[in-house]
Amino acid sequence: MSRVGVYAGSFDPVTNGHSDLVARSFAFVDHLVVGVATNVNKQALFTMEERAEFIRHAVGEDERIEVRAFQGLLVEFARSLGARIIIRGLRAVSDFEYEFQMALMNRQLAPEIETIFMLPSVETTYLSSSLVREVARHGGAVDQFAHPRVVEALRAKFRSA
Amino acid sequence: MSRVGVYAGSFDPVTNGHSDLVARSFAFVDHLVVGVATNVNKQALFTMEERAEFIRHAVGEDERIEVRAFQGLLVEFARSLGARIIIRGLRAVSDFEYEFQMALMNRQLAPEIETIFMLPSVETTYLSSSLVREVARHGGAVDQFAHPRVVEALRAKFRSA
Amino acid sequence: MSRVGVYAGSFDPVTNGHSDLVARSFAFVDHLVVGVATNVNKQALFTMEERAEFIRHAVGEDERIEVRAFQGLLVEFARSLGARIIIRGLRAVSDFEYEFQMALMNRQLAPEIETIFMLPSVETTYLSSSLVREVARHGGAVDQFAHPRVVEALRAKFRSA
Amino acid sequence: MSRVGVYAGSFDPVTNGHSDLVARSFAFVDHLVVGVATNVNKQALFTMEERAEFIRHAVGEDERIEVRAFQGLLVEFARSLGARIIIRGLRAVSDFEYEFQMALMNRQLAPEIETIFMLPSVETTYLSSSLVREVARHGGAVDQFAHPRVVEALRAKFRSA
Amino acid sequence: MSRVGVYAGSFDPVTNGHSDLVARSFAFVDHLVVGVATNVNKQALFTMEERAEFIRHAVGEDERIEVRAFQGLLVEFARSLGARIIIRGLRAVSDFEYEFQMALMNRQLAPEIETIFMLPSVETTYLSSSLVREVARHGGAVDQFAHPRVVEALRAKFRSA
Amino acid sequence: MSRVGVYAGSFDPVTNGHSDLVARSFAFVDHLVVGVATNVNKQALFTMEERAEFIRHAVGEDERIEVRAFQGLLVEFARSLGARIIIRGLRAVSDFEYEFQMALMNRQLAPEIETIFMLPSVETTYLSSSLVREVARHGGAVDQFAHPRVVEALRAKFRSA
Repeated sequence: MSRVGVYAGSFDPVTNGHSDLVARSFAFVDHLVVGVATNVNKQALFTMEERAEFIRHAVGEDERIEVRAFQGLLVEFARSLGARIIIRGLRAVSDFEYEFQMALMNRQLAPEIETIFMLPSVETTYLSSSLVREVARHGGAVDQFAHPRVVEALRAKFRSA
Repeated sequence: MSRVGVYAGSFDPVTNGHSDLVARSFAFVDHLVVGVATNVNKQALFTMEERAEFIRHAVGEDERIEVRAFQGLLVEFARSLGARIIIRGLRAVSDFEYEFQMALMNRQLAPEIETIFMLPSVETTYLSSSLVREVARHGGAVDQFAHPRVVEALRAKFRSA
Repeated sequence: MSRVGVYAGSFDPVTNGHSDLVARSFAFVDHLVVGVATNVNKQALFTMEERAEFIRHAVGEDERIEVRAFQGLLVEFARSLGARIIIRGLRAVSDFEYEFQMALMNRQLAPEIETIFMLPSVETTYLSSSLVREVARHGGAVDQFAHPRVVEALRAKFRSA
Repeated sequence: MSRVGVYAGSFDPVTNGHSDLVARSFAFVDHLVVGVATNVNKQALFTMEERAEFIRHAVGEDERIEVRAFQGLLVEFARSLGARIIIRGLRAVSDFEYEFQMALMNRQLAPEIETIFMLPSVETTYLSSSLVREVARHGGAVDQFAHPRVVEALRAKFRSA
Repeated sequence: MSRVGVYAGSFDPVTNGHSDLVARSFAFVDHLVVGVATNVNKQALFTMEERAEFIRHAVGEDERIEVRAFQGLLVEFARSLGARIIIRGLRAVSDFEYEFQMALMNRQLAPEIETIFMLPSVETTYLSSSLVREVARHGGAVDQFAHPRVVEALRAKFRSA
Repeated sequence: MSRVGVYAGSFDPVTNGHSDLVARSFAFVDHLVVGVATNVNKQALFTMEERAEFIRHAVGEDERIEVRAFQGLLVEFARSLGARIIIRGLRAVSDFEYEFQMALMNRQLAPEIETIFMLPSVETTYLSSSLVREVARHGGAVDQFAHPRVVEALRAKFRSA
């Protein structure tokens, strides 16, 4: 039986922390769908298409990985894919609190789907999309935090600003 | 001597977690005022009148409970009611941090008023008004999280959207 | 109806943080039983009788307060007293974790009893019996942390050591 | 490819929280080894044989599950089994802190093994072996927290005490 | 060798908690630059000039202290001043989480600069600029939380509102 | 004016995390005393002399660093050295809680001494003396966690066991 997992987020933009988690996930899934959330409330820096394209570059050619946009409830998205595993990265206690609440709510909505948590590599513990955006916005170097394609896009975005 | 407690929030909308706390509070208060905050900064989904009405449905007929709108400082509201007890629900560590700061500040402003914390029932640990709104917004079922009147109102709100 | 609360601990020895909480508790109870736990596992510095006597000095003459030794489950002790309220002090997040677990377990064992949490005064936030013992053991001054009777007893204990 | 996971602990004794996690784990493993730690430092209430036997009763007949004693490093145990997945339950923030440190250390020692974290069911959030032992020791009822066989053994143990 | 430290924030407005930290910092720095952040995203209550002036009043005449506005990355600001020490106040766990991430990111960007954390005095643990603004906005007294000049400015601001 | 700092612990044994903090501390102290605690309660794996010698190897030849045994209160030890700075490493939230309490108590006992907190390098976040001992006890390799001299001593200790 083939196991499908879902790893969802806004990925605005994808960082090395995200790619690291994707690579590790194949310890327990056969296929991974990276779900790029269309969050109507939050103003994203990059368009859905850009964010999806950055992920494809960051994770590299791998037929086990599919990148897809989604909106609505994560558990409905997972169900529509036949996925029984939702993967979340945990960096810190404050992450954990929110994730805990979300996972329990999702279990209530879809008891057949299990949320599991992974730790990022120690080198990417402090990384987040918002911190990377912040550093780039102020002209700092972000080469060590994200894929070259993302770095280039951030530079172009804030140069023109 | 009759003891009056205040349980305040934005209740946008009231969930089963809130009603559970109201019911439990009579272990140590004789009268409870549920204070619905008019928060000028935050855009509420429901009007003050709707939120107050939902609470009245959720807690049921009970002459010990009064639902009132308020604005301004919570300690001033409590004082105006002759209440010496402020009741807060604690769900998680991040709640606790903020609540701790708030309670110490309130004690500084009104030393005669005591803030006490209660735990929600384990079944409602993961509930919050914002999560319930989020699920409803995406068409998920919220019947198990709130009073039928609230469920119906959420459905109407997001159907028309 | 008269409300009875229980405030339990090992009180080895009672600190100003404990006395502060006792005084505040009368915002919502009419009688308070201070339960001194006979913990068979933990080696106490002071005997049960000493610890109870110190508490009586620290809280002063007050007919609303009763100091009693107990062993066994806290909820059974509360039940035997007709108390429906268990009072706990919260100082820190790590307190909160353990307390949360304990309170939920106790609710399972005795649903009619409610656990409520209070914050100590900001001046006693950092106080704990073990820290006070530690300072006294090393010859530090503890006058500002506990009742004179306790201070004297600690001094005698560690002088003879 | 068959995926083997390891779920280790001292299980002194196994609770409903543990059994719940075992059942959920088959969302992402094909075989699960429940490793019962022989901790030389900690005095266990039950013998290794008893603890293993209780687990077998609690998880029921299931050929995908194997219960084994182990000593030494968890990562070495996992390696010896050809397991690439270590499963841990997370109940609270303080769990998380320790688990985080342990998982990073284990990754350093065995980079090919991934530690993943799961949430217990909301009804077992407050359960731990030590709390169950504590309740039983004081004569409280533990029927709702553990398998009948465990309940019976706890009763026998503390009756004779 | 003279040691220069940087203490940055939005100080909107400066509270007694901030002044307390400034005074304590001279245990390990010879000169302190208080950096007032021009945060383009966040709408401040007071102008940059007002906030800087309030700080000068709050910390008093002291030639070791310099108040300066800055924008961009904090580490770049520190570098431009020849400072090797960034000072942060820690009040709570949630502070700590964010500060931890920020400090690790800053170390990556500027390994020669060290971030160090201090605790506020216990009397100012619960203070924050946003809480002070909130209390003042609702007509509460803030005399005990901030410098008279700040108190007066808050009163004027919200009287006219 | 020369600034003296104290960095205290049981160092049983010193790890790369400790050495890293020592090296970083010279951003704000001129001399550092590494205080090795003689904890009468805790059974140490290595003698006081061994622990001190390991530290000397781990931090290398540096006339700014002095390694000294101490017993009693840390603030008294600091006072006896003319040190006004106590340095603590923070790894995790649970560290922070305890450290917070300790630092506030110490400030009460010795207001002229300031406790400051530093973050370890990200590579040593998960390191602790107890984890290193644990891994070594079970025959795991600890070369990447501690100085060769410590590694050798751990190996000798547990080989003979």
